Amino acid sequence: MVKEGISTAVIKRLPRYYRYLGELLESGIERISSGELSGKMNVTASQIRQDLNNFGGFGQQGYGYNVEYLYLEIGKILGVDKKHSMIIIGAGNLGQAIANYANFEKRGFVVTGLFDNNPEIYGKIVRGIEVQSTEKLKDFIINNKIEIAALTIPKNEAVKVAEVLIDAGIKAIWNFAHVDLNVPKDVVVENVHLSESLMRLSYNLTNDKKNTEY
Amino acid sequence: MVKEGISTAVIKRLPRYYRYLGELLESGIERISSGELSGKMNVTASQIRQDLNNFGGFGQQGYGYNVEYLYLEIGKILGVDKKHSMIIIGAGNLGQAIANYANFEKRGFVVTGLFDNNPEIYGKIVRGIEVQSTEKLKDFIINNKIEIAALTIPKNEAVKVAEVLIDAGIKAIWNFAHVDLNVPKDVVVENVHLSESLMRLSYNLTNDKKNTEY
Repeated sequence: MVKEGISTAVIKRLPRYYRYLGELLESGIERISSGELSGKMNVTASQIRQDLNNFGGFGQQGYGYNVEYLYLEIGKILGVDKKHSMIIIGAGNLGQAIANYANFEKRGFVVTGLFDNNPEIYGKIVRGIEVQSTEKLKDFIINNKIEIAALTIPKNEAVKVAEVLIDAGIKAIWNFAHVDLNVPKDVVVENVHLSESLMRLSYNLTNDKKNTEY
Repeated sequence: MVKEGISTAVIKRLPRYYRYLGELLESGIERISSGELSGKMNVTASQIRQDLNNFGGFGQQGYGYNVEYLYLEIGKILGVDKKHSMIIIGAGNLGQAIANYANFEKRGFVVTGLFDNNPEIYGKIVRGIEVQSTEKLKDFIINNKIEIAALTIPKNEAVKVAEVLIDAGIKAIWNFAHVDLNVPKDVVVENVHLSESLMRLSYNLTNDKKNTEY
C-alpha cells in the first residue's frame, strides 16, 4: 500500500534500498532492523524508518523488517516485478556494455534489439542479439511492442532518432546522449549525462567537497 | 567571485549551464538574456537569474549575459579550467567507451592509463593508450601523479581495487561499480549507478511520472 505523494527524494533512494535488500536476501538474511540497515547504508536509522513508513506496515517494533517482503514490495513500486522490453540504439562500446550487462535482465529489462547506422557492424552478435540497421527501428518497435529505448549515440543524431522512437510509440527513453530531448508528456526520459557527472566530480575535487550525494 | 554556501541544487545545475553556454559559444552567440536561456533550457528565467546571481555580477539589466565570460567563470567553479589526469580501471566495453570519449579530454580530463586484470587484453591499444595489468596500478598512480580513477569493473572487485587506489594517493574515484565505496574523508567519490538509473526510469514508467528531474 503506497501513500500518495511520496517525495522524489524518497523515490531516489528506493533503488538503493532495493539493492541492499537484494544483497541481504542473497546472503540468506531474513530480518533486519533499521539500525543494522543504517550501519550498512550510511543513512540514519530514523531516515530509514521514515522512508520505509511511506510504504506502510513493513516494520515491527523490536522485530525488524522482513527482508524478502520489503524487497518484493519495493520492487513492485519500482516496477521491476514485471518484464520490460528494451532496445539499444547505438552499438558502440557503451551500447554493447549495456547489452552485455546481465544484471539488467535479472531485474526484468530484457534487451531484444540492437541498432546502429554503421553497415560494417550489421549482423554482429552481442549477447545473442544481432546488430540491425536503424532503418528497421520503427517496424521493430511496433511489431515487438518495445517499451524502453536506450540511446547510446552521439548528441547530433539523438534528437532525430528520438523523434522516430516517439513516432513508433516508445514509452521511455534512457538517454545517454548529451542533449536534452523534447518529448511528449506521456514519454519518460531518464538522462545519464556522463560528462555532467564528471564535472560534478571535478567540482567536488576542486572545492574540497567530499562524498556529496546529489 | 563565488558566494559561500551555494546550495547543492545550484551546483547540480552548473554542468548543464556550462553545456548550454558552450553550445551558444560554438554557435557564435556572444550575449544572451535569462529569458532566451530559459526557453532553451526549460528552466524559468527567474530560476536562471537566481542561480547565476550566486556567482556575482555576470548579468546586466536589459543587456543580458556575456556568454563567454559566464562560460569561463562557471568552468573555473567546476574546476574544468585545469587539466586533470585520469586512469580507467576495467578495459571492458564501458571502460573503452570512456577512454574513447574525446569530449572528456576537451574538458580537461586526460586519460593516461588503462588497466585490466585480464592478461588476454594486455597490450591492446585504445585511443593510443595501452591496456596494462592492474598490478602496475599503484606505481603508475604515484609516478604519474594521477588524480582521478574511473572504476569500470564488477562490484565484487571494486572494493579491493579502491583500497589500492586510495593507498596510492588517488584524489577522486568515478565509480561505475554497483557498490558503495567506503573512502577516507579527503577522497571524492562520484557514483554512476546505471541500474539505479534504469530503476528510476522503470518507476516513472510504472507510475506515470514523466520527465522527472532528480
